[in-house]
Amino acid sequence: MMLINGVETNFVSAFDRGLSYGDGIFRTLKMVSGRPLHWSYHYDKLVQDAQALGLSCPAQQVLRDEMAHLNAGMTDGVIKIMLTRGVGLRGYQIPAQPETSRMVSFSAMPEWPGHWRTDGVTVRVCQLRLAIQPRLAGIKHLNRLEQVLARSEWQDATIAEGILLDQDGGLVGGVMSNVFLWHNQTLLTPRMDRCGVAGVTRAVLIEQAMQAGIPVYEDRLTLENLLQAQEVLLCNSLFGAWQIRQLNQHRWPAGQMIWQVRNWLENA
Amino acid sequence: MMLINGVETNFVSAFDRGLSYGDGIFRTLKMVSGRPLHWSYHYDKLVQDAQALGLSCPAQQVLRDEMAHLNAGMTDGVIKIMLTRGVGLRGYQIPAQPETSRMVSFSAMPEWPGHWRTDGVTVRVCQLRLAIQPRLAGIKHLNRLEQVLARSEWQDATIAEGILLDQDGGLVGGVMSNVFLWHNQTLLTPRMDRCGVAGVTRAVLIEQAMQAGIPVYEDRLTLENLLQAQEVLLCNSLFGAWQIRQLNQHRWPAGQMIWQVRNWLENA
Repeated sequence: MMLINGVETNFVSAFDRGLSYGDGIFRTLKMVSGRPLHWSYHYDKLVQDAQALGLSCPAQQVLRDEMAHLNAGMTDGVIKIMLTRGVGLRGYQIPAQPETSRMVSFSAMPEWPGHWRTDGVTVRVCQLRLAIQPRLAGIKHLNRLEQVLARSEWQDATIAEGILLDQDGGLVGGVMSNVFLWHNQTLLTPRMDRCGVAGVTRAVLIEQAMQAGIPVYEDRLTLENLLQAQEVLLCNSLFGAWQIRQLNQHRWPAGQMIWQVRNWLENA
Repeated sequence: MMLINGVETNFVSAFDRGLSYGDGIFRTLKMVSGRPLHWSYHYDKLVQDAQALGLSCPAQQVLRDEMAHLNAGMTDGVIKIMLTRGVGLRGYQIPAQPETSRMVSFSAMPEWPGHWRTDGVTVRVCQLRLAIQPRLAGIKHLNRLEQVLARSEWQDATIAEGILLDQDGGLVGGVMSNVFLWHNQTLLTPRMDRCGVAGVTRAVLIEQAMQAGIPVYEDRLTLENLLQAQEVLLCNSLFGAWQIRQLNQHRWPAGQMIWQVRNWLENA
């Protein structure tokens, strides 16, 4: 079910600039017993991304009310929020008075194999390399063809995620997740200033690690760095955190950091 | 007015992957007295772009019939065709049996000042630099945030177009057009293998020039090359061709090639 600008409908104007140009942003977050997990982080990021594209952002209470309406049963599931630049005439130029379209929907949680959580996951490296575009880096915008094409590279259901590098070979993260390397008592994660999405779970994890006194660095990293790390973690708003246990022939033993990270995420 | 999968409606599923991810392609073409200009080129390009993203492409006759239906008055105007990967569940993964959504609409021609055609145009150089992504280069896909942001850099209505460079400083073209340099009896145009859209009017122009025995090269070009050219032309499917007469302090005299090019485009 979806609410579009507060109205229950599954249809949107075919002249919405979100469709024409991907002119908008989105958020995906987890509802746990009717509560949106890490909501204040998600709202802050929504405001920040909206500002980066010059979109107006709805008031927090509007979104809270709509999420509550969609999830009246207080169950677990996924909330997706999209904000677009609304209906426009043909042409790239932004209308003089654009009216943001707001689309909020609720759906069931994806069904990932339970052992990915307990035993860790196998990943692959995607052939597609992300373009470097500092102007859009970090923003969760609606131009996601790179992710669609990267995800289409494999059908093997035992592969949980694809690792993405940028055009220069820099490590970016997973197709639908951010990545953290645990090495020498330090957490490392790729900078999101050239491409990639700076996810909310990544932000929560950085904040919690710093509060726990663990050094965290955002850095330029490579696939080599990933392979050499003691423990490699993926995170996103829906699955929380997974440990990478295998990439091609490379295997990692079950780690400890994954439990620490999950504890942070569940209590933030 | 719009036809979506053959049905008259202005609304599309809010779960269409065109909206969620920009997972689709489009074409914009000119109707002249009820006939789509350069139709066979447009259809070929639609097929080619669909193939590049793994979308199925509707039969030519389906689109011809829909264009005729939309433009029953046989007037001049703009046809826009969008093909998306259709409705999908949440997540980047392409559904097992995706059904392409087909959206065809007709609208009035944009009203550009008449003297842009007779006297040429003034352009600016955009600050935004296009990302280099060979996997998507040349394709007219729905991920157009870069063009939206580039077009938002100016409000001055005397500026007809913005010139785009790539992250390496290479010349790409205009925000909504391709560019040709006329120099030493030769036509030069940027290669579309790293970013940019390889437009149909560009293809027609290259073909016609070759048939006329004029050397045409697709090359790596720079802003320097553009400034040094004897004559610089912009082209797209709606305005045909414009001569650039001014960029910042640099001015070009009225040229001859523009007339030759227009003649080609109108008779192809």
